Order: sequence, then structure tokens, then C-alpha cells
Amino acid sequence: MKIITSPAEMKAFSLTHRRNSNSIGFVPTMGALHEGHLSLIDIARKHCGCAVASIFVNPAQFGPNEDFAKYPRAFERDCGLLEAAGCDCVFAPAVGDMYPDNYGTYVNVDGITDTLCGASRPGHFRGVATVVLKLFNIVLPDAAVFGSKDAQQVAVIRRMVEDLNLSVRIIAAPIAREAGGLAMSSRNAYLTIGERREAAAIYAGLAKSVEMYNDGCRDSQQIKNCVLTEINRSSTIKPEYVEAVDTKSLQPVDKIDGQVLIAVACRTSESGTRLIDNVVLKDKNL
Amino acid sequence: MKIITSPAEMKAFSLTHRRNSNSIGFVPTMGALHEGHLSLIDIARKHCGCAVASIFVNPAQFGPNEDFAKYPRAFERDCGLLEAAGCDCVFAPAVGDMYPDNYGTYVNVDGITDTLCGASRPGHFRGVATVVLKLFNIVLPDAAVFGSKDAQQVAVIRRMVEDLNLSVRIIAAPIAREAGGLAMSSRNAYLTIGERREAAAIYAGLAKSVEMYNDGCRDSQQIKNCVLTEINRSSTIKPEYVEAVDTKSLQPVDKIDGQVLIAVACRTSESGTRLIDNVVLKDKNL
Repeated sequence: MKIITSPAEMKAFSLTHRRNSNSIGFVPTMGALHEGHLSLIDIARKHCGCAVASIFVNPAQFGPNEDFAKYPRAFERDCGLLEAAGCDCVFAPAVGDMYPDNYGTYVNVDGITDTLCGASRPGHFRGVATVVLKLFNIVLPDAAVFGSKDAQQVAVIRRMVEDLNLSVRIIAAPIAREAGGLAMSSRNAYLTIGERREAAAIYAGLAKSVEMYNDGCRDSQQIKNCVLTEINRSSTIKPEYVEAVDTKSLQPVDKIDGQVLIAVACRTSESGTRLIDNVVLKDKNL
Repeated sequence: MKIITSPAEMKAFSLTHRRNSNSIGFVPTMGALHEGHLSLIDIARKHCGCAVASIFVNPAQFGPNEDFAKYPRAFERDCGLLEAAGCDCVFAPAVGDMYPDNYGTYVNVDGITDTLCGASRPGHFRGVATVVLKLFNIVLPDAAVFGSKDAQQVAVIRRMVEDLNLSVRIIAAPIAREAGGLAMSSRNAYLTIGERREAAAIYAGLAKSVEMYNDGCRDSQQIKNCVLTEINRSSTIKPEYVEAVDTKSLQPVDKIDGQVLIAVACRTSESGTRLIDNVVLKDKNL
């Protein structure tokens, strides 16, 4: 597995592969990899001849009071996991090479970034869209694979790709979960033992919403209340929001119709960890 | 000469050329072409195997009180001029194909868009950067040619290309001028006969600044005053700004050192036309 740190060298690597008609499947990550990330590599390998992962903790998507400095970093371990998963190349640029002095260009995706996580994390999706566009322009992928846990991120990137006329196929992979149902996340490393146990309540709530939907409930408020009740059974998991929104526009819906995203964000009361999760409610025919 | 209106068809045309190792030189325009534009086509043809021009009056770069609706449009005439100039393909998309319903992605280039024209045209360079990035992603050029009259535009696009890791070579072409010195512009069509005659004072002022520089003056204020004095000899040309700025950062300089842009914007008092022009002062050795 090749490890590249220079953007110019990464672009040259990708151009060589593309000239040889070898398609590139790309998995952008911030490192601290878990099985969820590795499942994205699997998908990239299935769709493309060459799998490239990036490891870059992107300062532009962290707010001033967020966890950029303490975000878990485990480069050697990550590279071992990626190599074992069949990844062909890791791109791990330095912050100064991605955002040199006088850097000034940022991508804003209006309309779908001011709700859900965007409401409490101003500038977060600007940072995400900007770094993903930069990475796309360096790695030149045919397809890019993102985890569905970050549902708003996927929606923002899909919108950006469409709006900016990019030719990258965006693939959203299913959420990888721990045995108890907790969605895998690099931030789970922050959780205390008690929080980790109680955090299972988030998925329990979402699973209930699927049950209610399958039993015929189409009322957003009823479904959101049910999720909230389930999460509130725990003593350490505090809901930040529970929303029912259209999967594309991310606008709230009163009635579940078509494909509706039930999205949850919580914060734990001991370690102060922010956790997100979601399910999509849809007719089996959709 | 091929005329294409569909973004997908334009991209397919460019991909075919690129696969055949034919380089693409791109000249983005808003139509209403003059000799200045045609000189850009010449340059594109010199550098690349295939010259593509776009004609698109971009609503995103006009303010609510600006001249989007009345901006001169002359599509048939423009196509005739482009074909005669040896242009291989014109891309002329509909507004609805560039900005469909729910469009939401915009590119901001911070730091160099709040001075000069950006100060009086909020959002203008956001619209320029956004449409140029979209056009680059559709036309897939190896090189793109811009007129130096819009010096801030060139600086913004260079910054965007560098920041977003794009592989497009940006070529700035010399300003084409009418016999009296007036910089060619599609907006010159708005001028009354009297304004057009008096507008020559703008270049006269800039030419004086070059003289002063060549005579050893390195004081920005003295040079700006001289340009202002020259422009104020006319009765219909009202200066909006005369600035001396670094050519890359566009930050004001007190002392002329290295490459300094003397940039002027004026508004005419009869037709209310906005005119811009500039010269670069630099040592002959630079």
C-alpha cells in the first residue's frame, strides 16, 4: 500500500491510474478508523479498480470550541487496518499543504446546512464541503464512499456534486453498528463505560421508530416523541435534536411520506461526547 | 464550429477531446463580444488544440440593482465572430441548466474579494468564482484565458484554482483598447457619445501613472492623485476608486515595490455606466 503526503504526488498517482483506465474509489476519513470505515473500503474496492483512502483531520470543519486538538489520531494503526482491508493508497497530507498561508476559498452549500447538525455547528459543513472538493480535485475519484451515519454530510456532498457539475459518483454505505446497536464512530473512544452502555438507547429509539412506521404510523411528532422517550430512559445521554426530515432537502416533514430521515444528535453528560445516528423510513417499494 | 447548450453534452465533447490528447483552451464570456474577447480566443488557440468559448450571462454575479436584464445580448453575431476567430466550440447553457431549482452551492474567495470592485459589488465575486468553477468542471479545460481589464477577477480565479487544487492554467491576456485608449468592454455599448469621448481620460490617467513610475516616483498617494486629477478633467466620468494594491493579495500599498496594480473604477454621470481599467507598475527586470 502506497502512502502519499504530497497533493501533487497524489494527483500524479491518480492521473496515472486514470490514464490506464483504472477507476478510483475514494474513502475520505479523519483517521481513528473503525469497522465502519473498513466497510467503506470494501465498497470502494467492489466498484473500482483502485481504492484510495485519505486520512486528514480537517481543521476547517471544527468549530473554535470543538475537539480538533483532541480528536483521536492513530496513523500507524490506521495504515495497518487499511492495508489489511485491501486499500491501495493512503493520502495523508499535512494541514499546511491543504491550507497554506493566504488560503481563502470556501464552499458553502446553502439551504441544507442550517438545519440538524448545521444549526449547532456553524461553519462545520462549509469545512466539510471545502475539504471534500479539494480532496476530489487531488484524488480524482470515479466514486467516493461515505458512511450514512453522517446523513447530512452525505446530503451536502450530493448537492455539491450536482451543483458544481462534478463527475464523482457518491455512494452512501449502511451504518456500521456495535453489538448493542450503537453506531460506530471515532468519537465513541471518548465515552465512559457507563455512557457507552447507555448510548445503545439511541439506536433503541430509532429501531422503535421503524417499528411504529411498519405498524402504520405516519405522524412525525408521534415518532419523534417515541424516539425521545426511549433516549430519555438513559441518565447520561441528552438529546440535542430528534428530527424527521426529507432525505434530500432536509426540511422537516409533518407526515411521513416518501423517504424520511429520522435524525438524532445527543450529547453525553459525563464526557461531553456528541453522538449522531439516524434511520430512513420508507415504503419497501420505494 | 459546434454550438452546445447542454452541460452533459459539453462535458462529453471535452472528454472525447481529452481522451484523444487534444488540449482544451477555454474562454469564458458573457457574450456581446468585442476585439478583446477575440484576442483571448487567439491566445487559447496558440496554447491548445481545441478552443472553447462559453457565452453565459451569469445572474449570480449581478447584484439586485445591477444590469443583468439589460446586459447586451447578441448571440448570433457573437457566434459569427467566434467562428471567424477560429473557435471550435461555443457552450451557451440556459440559466435553468446552470442554476436549477434548489441550487445551493457557492464558492467564496475570502480576503481578496472585499476590496476594489468587491467593496461596492457584494456577492459579485462569489457569483464569478461559482460560475467559473462550474464551467471548468463542465468544459474541463487545460488552460483558461481571461482579460486583464478585470484584474480582481483574474486574482480571484487564480486564488481559487490554487486553493481548490484545480489543474487549469490561468492565462491573463493584455487589455484590448480602443484607438483613444478606452479599455474595450461590452458595457461601452451603454455610453453616450460624449461619455465615450471623455472616458479616454481613464487611460490617460493610468498612462500618466506609468510615466511617473518610469520617472522614479514610488509614492502610491502621489500616483493615485495624478490619476484622479486626470480623470477629473472630464465632466461625465466620476471616479469610484483609484487604488494602488499588491497584484496578488490586492492589499493597498503605500510604496510601489515589486508588482503593483493601479486599479480604477468610474461611473459615468449620464448613462450611469460602470467602467474599470488598470495598469501594472513593475520594474522592467521583474
